[in-house]
Amino acid sequence: MELLVRYLERRSSASSVMTQDIIKEENLRDDLRYYFMSPCEKYRTRRQKPWKLGVQILKIVMITTQLILFGLNNQLVVSYKEENTMALKNIFLKDFRGVDEDDYSVAVYTQHGVYESLFHVLDQYSQLGRLSTGPITYAEDEDGKLLPLIVCKQHYKRGIVQPSDEAYDMDAQLETVCLSHDPKTANLQRTHNSSFFDLDFYRLVDITITFQLKGINLQTVRSRELPDCYLFHVTITFDNQCHSGKVKIFLDTDAQSSTCRDWKISGTAQKNTHYLLIFDGFVILVCLTSAVLCTRSIVLAVRLLQRFSRFFRENYNRKVCEDDQSEFLNGWYVLVIVSDLLAIIGTILKMEIQAKSLTSYDVCSIFLGTSTLMVWVGVIRYLGYFQKYNVLILTMKAAFPKVLRFCCCAGMIYLGYTFCGWIVLGPYHEKVTDKLVRGEQRNWRP
Amino acid sequence: MELLVRYLERRSSASSVMTQDIIKEENLRDDLRYYFMSPCEKYRTRRQKPWKLGVQILKIVMITTQLILFGLNNQLVVSYKEENTMALKNIFLKDFRGVDEDDYSVAVYTQHGVYESLFHVLDQYSQLGRLSTGPITYAEDEDGKLLPLIVCKQHYKRGIVQPSDEAYDMDAQLETVCLSHDPKTANLQRTHNSSFFDLDFYRLVDITITFQLKGINLQTVRSRELPDCYLFHVTITFDNQCHSGKVKIFLDTDAQSSTCRDWKISGTAQKNTHYLLIFDGFVILVCLTSAVLCTRSIVLAVRLLQRFSRFFRENYNRKVCEDDQSEFLNGWYVLVIVSDLLAIIGTILKMEIQAKSLTSYDVCSIFLGTSTLMVWVGVIRYLGYFQKYNVLILTMKAAFPKVLRFCCCAGMIYLGYTFCGWIVLGPYHEKVTDKLVRGEQRNWRP
Amino acid sequence: MELLVRYLERRSSASSVMTQDIIKEENLRDDLRYYFMSPCEKYRTRRQKPWKLGVQILKIVMITTQLILFGLNNQLVVSYKEENTMALKNIFLKDFRGVDEDDYSVAVYTQHGVYESLFHVLDQYSQLGRLSTGPITYAEDEDGKLLPLIVCKQHYKRGIVQPSDEAYDMDAQLETVCLSHDPKTANLQRTHNSSFFDLDFYRLVDITITFQLKGINLQTVRSRELPDCYLFHVTITFDNQCHSGKVKIFLDTDAQSSTCRDWKISGTAQKNTHYLLIFDGFVILVCLTSAVLCTRSIVLAVRLLQRFSRFFRENYNRKVCEDDQSEFLNGWYVLVIVSDLLAIIGTILKMEIQAKSLTSYDVCSIFLGTSTLMVWVGVIRYLGYFQKYNVLILTMKAAFPKVLRFCCCAGMIYLGYTFCGWIVLGPYHEKVTDKLVRGEQRNWRP
Amino acid sequence: MELLVRYLERRSSASSVMTQDIIKEENLRDDLRYYFMSPCEKYRTRRQKPWKLGVQILKIVMITTQLILFGLNNQLVVSYKEENTMALKNIFLKDFRGVDEDDYSVAVYTQHGVYESLFHVLDQYSQLGRLSTGPITYAEDEDGKLLPLIVCKQHYKRGIVQPSDEAYDMDAQLETVCLSHDPKTANLQRTHNSSFFDLDFYRLVDITITFQLKGINLQTVRSRELPDCYLFHVTITFDNQCHSGKVKIFLDTDAQSSTCRDWKISGTAQKNTHYLLIFDGFVILVCLTSAVLCTRSIVLAVRLLQRFSRFFRENYNRKVCEDDQSEFLNGWYVLVIVSDLLAIIGTILKMEIQAKSLTSYDVCSIFLGTSTLMVWVGVIRYLGYFQKYNVLILTMKAAFPKVLRFCCCAGMIYLGYTFCGWIVLGPYHEKVTDKLVRGEQRNWRP
Repeated sequence: MELLVRYLERRSSASSVMTQDIIKEENLRDDLRYYFMSPCEKYRTRRQKPWKLGVQILKIVMITTQLILFGLNNQLVVSYKEENTMALKNIFLKDFRGVDEDDYSVAVYTQHGVYESLFHVLDQYSQLGRLSTGPITYAEDEDGKLLPLIVCKQHYKRGIVQPSDEAYDMDAQLETVCLSHDPKTANLQRTHNSSFFDLDFYRLVDITITFQLKGINLQTVRSRELPDCYLFHVTITFDNQCHSGKVKIFLDTDAQSSTCRDWKISGTAQKNTHYLLIFDGFVILVCLTSAVLCTRSIVLAVRLLQRFSRFFRENYNRKVCEDDQSEFLNGWYVLVIVSDLLAIIGTILKMEIQAKSLTSYDVCSIFLGTSTLMVWVGVIRYLGYFQKYNVLILTMKAAFPKVLRFCCCAGMIYLGYTFCGWIVLGPYHEKVTDKLVRGEQRNWRP
Repeated sequence: MELLVRYLERRSSASSVMTQDIIKEENLRDDLRYYFMSPCEKYRTRRQKPWKLGVQILKIVMITTQLILFGLNNQLVVSYKEENTMALKNIFLKDFRGVDEDDYSVAVYTQHGVYESLFHVLDQYSQLGRLSTGPITYAEDEDGKLLPLIVCKQHYKRGIVQPSDEAYDMDAQLETVCLSHDPKTANLQRTHNSSFFDLDFYRLVDITITFQLKGINLQTVRSRELPDCYLFHVTITFDNQCHSGKVKIFLDTDAQSSTCRDWKISGTAQKNTHYLLIFDGFVILVCLTSAVLCTRSIVLAVRLLQRFSRFFRENYNRKVCEDDQSEFLNGWYVLVIVSDLLAIIGTILKMEIQAKSLTSYDVCSIFLGTSTLMVWVGVIRYLGYFQKYNVLILTMKAAFPKVLRFCCCAGMIYLGYTFCGWIVLGPYHEKVTDKLVRGEQRNWRP
Repeated sequence: MELLVRYLERRSSASSVMTQDIIKEENLRDDLRYYFMSPCEKYRTRRQKPWKLGVQILKIVMITTQLILFGLNNQLVVSYKEENTMALKNIFLKDFRGVDEDDYSVAVYTQHGVYESLFHVLDQYSQLGRLSTGPITYAEDEDGKLLPLIVCKQHYKRGIVQPSDEAYDMDAQLETVCLSHDPKTANLQRTHNSSFFDLDFYRLVDITITFQLKGINLQTVRSRELPDCYLFHVTITFDNQCHSGKVKIFLDTDAQSSTCRDWKISGTAQKNTHYLLIFDGFVILVCLTSAVLCTRSIVLAVRLLQRFSRFFRENYNRKVCEDDQSEFLNGWYVLVIVSDLLAIIGTILKMEIQAKSLTSYDVCSIFLGTSTLMVWVGVIRYLGYFQKYNVLILTMKAAFPKVLRFCCCAGMIYLGYTFCGWIVLGPYHEKVTDKLVRGEQRNWRP
Repeated sequence: MELLVRYLERRSSASSVMTQDIIKEENLRDDLRYYFMSPCEKYRTRRQKPWKLGVQILKIVMITTQLILFGLNNQLVVSYKEENTMALKNIFLKDFRGVDEDDYSVAVYTQHGVYESLFHVLDQYSQLGRLSTGPITYAEDEDGKLLPLIVCKQHYKRGIVQPSDEAYDMDAQLETVCLSHDPKTANLQRTHNSSFFDLDFYRLVDITITFQLKGINLQTVRSRELPDCYLFHVTITFDNQCHSGKVKIFLDTDAQSSTCRDWKISGTAQKNTHYLLIFDGFVILVCLTSAVLCTRSIVLAVRLLQRFSRFFRENYNRKVCEDDQSEFLNGWYVLVIVSDLLAIIGTILKMEIQAKSLTSYDVCSIFLGTSTLMVWVGVIRYLGYFQKYNVLILTMKAAFPKVLRFCCCAGMIYLGYTFCGWIVLGPYHEKVTDKLVRGEQRNWRP
């Protein structure tokens, strides 16, 4: 940097002889000076319009708009899945209070309660058509036969447990027994298979009820998109593996979306998707332009560096030091190019999703989100062109490693403290404080 | 500023010759010095009593008192509307728990539940007179006929949905069918119009029940004001547009207040409103005085500036620079005048409201609130007259832009992070953490 | 201060002539130097033991112990009252959920609900003896007759309200009608006075049920104190003054404690109260000693100041400036004396309370609490004797006014902001955000 | 320090005569310089590989791994106990809502409620076998006889309380009456002992129901450990000692784990415990190595110090000052040795626990946790070898006492404030604010 600065400032001092060499040197000096200018200065000296700046500003607006549109769409899908899960929980779980406790949905503490919850699932499943308000039915296989509901119970192979004698005789291997029900008559099976439903709680590890439901997300019709078809794998688990007298009931749904097989839609849908496609195409164009412009700037910078170092080698027989070389490689350009590439990939994925040939919302949102983050962080660079902001940014840059180093030291102590606290206080925390509080209260009454 | 200060300090040095000119100059110098004094100094030099300061202090007290009185009154109205809405929710919504979940009031998950909630509304509405404890009845039209209750259901025009076949055939256009009920027999209609109430949940988008109720806010009688009459437009919406199996029920009320048509009141009411009117008038007077005094000060300052610049042009042939000119325009005076104008408008509105010829509480409170904010901020100016506070205020003034600039930079990063976080983590947040927690727990059991 | 310091430092420079005057001066100088020493230094120079310091340390320990003992005792009384109120709410209020909503206990929204809640109170009251688990019964007057339960309803004198016509004809004067019940047959009265219980909700402002119960706080027996007798004035209010359709039910208890009239106790109680009395006496003694010692120090300081200023007047004919004079008056001594006086008064009150001749726990705790606060703050003075702490304390002392000044400025802005926010945003806050959220959601679905 | 530094820096100045003495001095100087080097420098000068550093890094990894494994295992045990307690509360406490209120589980306010809760416990206990889903049964004594359920009621020996007359006549001594039930017929006893269950609430202080249950933690089978047997001492307390009309019900369980007496297990269990044992052994080995290496370093340092001070005494006849001596004793080594010893003891305890010959999880986790904390804090020392971190660490070291001193001063004020606030505001807090709020609301309606 030193060398570079000194070189740039030593301007045409006592150069009365205008030889070829001096002209070349002047040229190089001008180019260098121009290279390190901000867009405003460039405009003032050579009247070059700040195309790159304009493209960046346009890009920020477009990418943010696109992200918001995609996000709102995405939210529809996510809320559909969540509301569906909530509806299934309300239908299938007895005494469900509307919110999950800790990580499970319902806890049952008595044998009677377990049986009731279990049969409630079967009853509700058999009359699902009359219950649910949503367009959801039993799934069929390829032949049009209804897929069955499967109840599995997992228990220790053999086990005699006599807590009063402090004695047990167990085979620790797990055995799984399953029963498959036809959906419509699921509620009758419990009388036919009463031996299966005679649970031996000492050996029982868990009961799993699995079934598949199909649904259609008709909501998207209103936002003028084609409805998706969904396949819900529902798993209801009665978890007794802790054998603590508390049976936790979980309900998990795994929703797979796919294009519907056979559809016909009339009315106003699928009209404004064209505009969206055009908009997406325009975003790709802007990102490509931005990427090309930045690549060009990097190439120019590398060439300038080569010219500069050749000149130095020839005239002064000195090498340009590494610090000066790194000045030529602008990190911001790299950031912009990476963000552009991510945006282009994300946009292509988005178009595929809109065309219903892909359903990977997650991957697409990672691409679009990361590129938007980078684009906004990139704005700081343009703030740096203002004198007053520049001071601030340089200060922050200088302070950053010190802050990081402090965090590192504090982190070590924190890590040790965390491990220690987790093991020493953690699991007993509630109990200890409880005891202390109760104890104090009793002692304080003299 | 420099010029001004130097000018003021160079006092009558070696001025033995008392010509007309010098007298004039001395005069100007005295006036200038006097102009930049604080009220205390003015009192000390010319014994001028600080009228303006007194008016400001009086204004702070009066405007704050007025704001509090108005606010308390306002709160009565707002709490009346809120309690009314709460009462209507408790009467019309089945299984309402007293607080709204998220943004809806109640969620229903089964077909049976939807029917029950729907008929509950009709039943309760038909016996409203016997139910409600408040003075609320069915609204009438001009001819004295009761306005009907209207039930509308909105559904897709045509739609066959077969989720098991992943097939649908829909007309995306919406069709609305309505039914109008006489209030008193609303509960009978459901048997007469059983076909209307045979809901096709696959096609159903929403059901809207609208009716109008009239009420009187008798509460104000106790605060010696005339009661207002209210017209409540109640809308109960069964929202199935997500088709997720969860039907959300909303209850919205839109309360319009107006003067009652025909009233007669005896006893103690409407006596102390006279005092309030006199107080309001006094507030307007004080604000006007304050505005006039500040305008006069600005006018005097402008004249002084003209004299000063003329003098400079004539004697030294120099122009007064812009910085010095801006010293003459006191920003605080502008603040005071704006706040006075707002307060006057707000007070006039308040008087209109009290006279029952206006009901726009919102607009009035914006005017009064803003003016009070400005008046209190204006107090800082008077603190600046104390030497020690002045240092503090100048320091804060200097630090302000730097803080703002830092916030600007941090804001960029925050904005990018927000967009990125919203799209990448946001909608999946709960699900992801849920899975992680559950997964970890299962894995941690080795 | 300057003068004083210089005087002390100019020590016996060139004083070969030992006249009477010089001896006197040396004496004064020694006394002054000694006066401004810390206890350690005093001990080192004149071997004077730091009695005052010892007394202060003893005082801190004793006053804190006393405060804790009193506080624990006090908490028993407070928790007794609170639990009693909670028990009464659970017994008398129908559908009470265990916690108050906002400020009221239960809200009722229908006419039927009001009647049910009202009769529930009467029913429960008539069978109180069989219900309550605590030693609580109906209060009696002097003649041993049970005090009656009084039901009062307050309504507008005359009122015809026709919301549908937007018409009303009211007499704003309030009329109160009361009914007095014998406790044991309270539940029968509603059939006998059915016309009273035929409520006209349009006119009704509120219903108040008042009765008195007597209880004994037997809990204190276990902490070896005599039980107190309590008289509970219970007021149950059905508040309809808002006429919004929501009737709020309040239950207020006002508990008055007094010594029981007629008591006899055997067993272990009232044994260790002697020790407590002795301890309290000792506290008073220590505080008195501390107060006397500090007063003596102040008197000595004033005398020294007089000697010093006389000397100065005579020898140098100069007056001691005010700053130097204030150095002699030690603010800490004043603090200690005030705290001692408060502690003594508090302790006397506490002894009265323990002797059951007073029940004003609140006044006593204010005295004891304030004195403890002062004693602990006084510790900072002793920390100031250590060199390193002194620097810290002086720094804090210097920074304090600046911090205060900043708070003052910020306070002005905050005050203005609060008023403005309260009136402009406050009452509409929930509604506005609700609408915004709902509106956005609807708009975002394109 | 000064002396030491000066000594090290004064290197071979003008030492042309190579006598024995000078060689010895040079030797000592070299050894000293080497001693104060960081591992990197040592490697550079004498090519000594940093064994000690390597051992430390290995130790961090191993101890942290071990801690996590133990913690996860521990959590299983703790969660088993907690879930068991929760299950017992749900079974035995009537109207238990799933979470404790304040510190009690359920509160009852009526006599009827107390009886119902009491009989509910007896009923549920007699049919425990059919209720609970966990492997839990009545405990037996050595002869195989079921241990009885014991109901005790504690009341004042004699007591006539007449609140209406403000009169009482009590014997403050407590009397306890107990009744012992056979588990299977516990529910019948209440009819046989109806006089016992005729509670006199005025005298009643508390009722305690105690029984013992036995359970087996089968959960550990899945993590390939042998199941533990548990003995639960369950205590249900009906606490009426406040006599406020609110009877609080507590349920406490005290779980004692022990090895089961008679067990037989087949299948996959107890296979990977061998690997764990080997891992634990390796941890002990590493810790021992680390401790030995550090002890050796300390011994070497002490020897070097002796050589150094002898040299000084002989050559310069000066003693090494204390500051310099303390430089030789490296505090970090002491930390490492202490942490090693703790880790070794903890690991041995852990192995004993795994071998089921000990069940003191708490003691073991304190040892392991503390040692892990120390090991992580020790990392800071290695960060200090980097130049840039060293500055930071030294700064923190210097600032620490000042921060502490400030905290000390602030602590005094805080302590005083806490005592004062507790006694003056504390117990009345809710009540005061309640009154204020209510009062204001009523006054504000003018």
